[in-house]
Amino acid sequence: MKIGYLQFKPELHNPAVNTEKVSDFISGADFDLLVIPELANSGYLLSSIDELEKISENPDNGKYCAMLKKISKKKNACIVSGFCESTKDGSQNVYYNSSILVFPDGKFRIYRKTHLFYNEKNFFQSGNTGFWVYEVPSEKYGVVKIGMMICFDWIYPEAARTLALRGAQIICHPSNLVMPYCQNSMYTRAIENRVFTITANRIGTDAIGKDTVSFTGGSVILNPNGDYISRASVDKEEINIVEINPNDAKNKFINDKNNLFDERREMFYYR
Amino acid sequence: MKIGYLQFKPELHNPAVNTEKVSDFISGADFDLLVIPELANSGYLLSSIDELEKISENPDNGKYCAMLKKISKKKNACIVSGFCESTKDGSQNVYYNSSILVFPDGKFRIYRKTHLFYNEKNFFQSGNTGFWVYEVPSEKYGVVKIGMMICFDWIYPEAARTLALRGAQIICHPSNLVMPYCQNSMYTRAIENRVFTITANRIGTDAIGKDTVSFTGGSVILNPNGDYISRASVDKEEINIVEINPNDAKNKFINDKNNLFDERREMFYYR
Repeated sequence: MKIGYLQFKPELHNPAVNTEKVSDFISGADFDLLVIPELANSGYLLSSIDELEKISENPDNGKYCAMLKKISKKKNACIVSGFCESTKDGSQNVYYNSSILVFPDGKFRIYRKTHLFYNEKNFFQSGNTGFWVYEVPSEKYGVVKIGMMICFDWIYPEAARTLALRGAQIICHPSNLVMPYCQNSMYTRAIENRVFTITANRIGTDAIGKDTVSFTGGSVILNPNGDYISRASVDKEEINIVEINPNDAKNKFINDKNNLFDERREMFYYR
Repeated sequence: MKIGYLQFKPELHNPAVNTEKVSDFISGADFDLLVIPELANSGYLLSSIDELEKISENPDNGKYCAMLKKISKKKNACIVSGFCESTKDGSQNVYYNSSILVFPDGKFRIYRKTHLFYNEKNFFQSGNTGFWVYEVPSEKYGVVKIGMMICFDWIYPEAARTLALRGAQIICHPSNLVMPYCQNSMYTRAIENRVFTITANRIGTDAIGKDTVSFTGGSVILNPNGDYISRASVDKEEINIVEINPNDAKNKFINDKNNLFDERREMFYYR
């Protein structure tokens, strides 16, 4: 199974350009599952709700998601991408920092970021979907179970744990990382859960007046042994694909006598 | 507050020598809280229950624990040490891979390893204590809350998480690490919980016939920011003490807007 990520720099508040840019990047790539960074259609920084309304979209009919669906169908491959979502809550517009999983048959699933970082709280609702696992069709492996989390969710061990305990073999992790911790810690997330992880980070700097934020690139893929099987540069746009056997993540033995999942002792864990 | 660890090589199956060796190492050190490796009285490898009976002890009256209590009282300081515990379950002798926390007033607390590694299962019962937090007296800080976990417990995120959610400011982690993962991953355990961690590992090799196992040393102390504030060699006996402010672990803000603990969203976590 060919899995990978796109690392790129979105144009701030320019979904039309970003839709074209992502389309150009991924149309020529050969993959079964590709992960694209958080807020890939909009860029990261926000300064007003009016602006947010303009740069967000509904996944049922938005142009960025339509592009993903089209390419997914054409390539018979799945795509996960972060995007800036708008939807209606009754008569009110609400916004989520979301991730879409697009299937070749046109269906899709949405994950909404559970743990918002810093000023995201001024604009987005906290996610209301929770962490769920979806079956992705694979010619070679039948079905492969994947889950989604977004960026800062990584620091909560419960996020990746919940996905893994629900059967995820691959955790897709669109990100806009500004801190230096995550890329190192994905090592722990991969081995404690014995899953594949794909962290698709962005690069570059967003600026609105004096408000600037820079992103750390260095997208990574890890296998269930905690090996970094792909690691991107910190400052270049790139698309990287690696071949894996997703069933490696079904084996929860860390040696021939310790099965990490069978040996969980829930009665002793905080709840 | 002065916290630290002893990294050393126990003599296999020689509690008398190990009691003297540990006493010699720690008697001259200046600390408020010291952590000593897993199974420090006995060494690691085991080949029979008869042998286990000889090298284990009951913490109420065992000589290794008595030595710790004496030094704790004399120095007015707390000590955490792994040890090979024997106790009665009705008329039957049972054994635990345990850790003792010794207070200057002679009181003590026991933690029994929850997640046994590899052949430990042939000899020890799985721990039945769970993960609890104890108040250690401190002249400067009033009380400081500490918790214990042992070696392989580290790979279960629930272990450190449970201790941290129950208020641990310092996680004491006696270890006999044979794999290379833990010392790197303590970074994640420290930052995801914003606690201090003290991993006291052993060095050297145990051998019984052709059965040999080598330990990776490299004991580490981390602060709540995930900084390695002490790191030992991989092959030398050493005792290292660092000065910390334990109240740094009470601040769960990772920036001025994100409090890691207040923002947990338990309704979405697997249970």
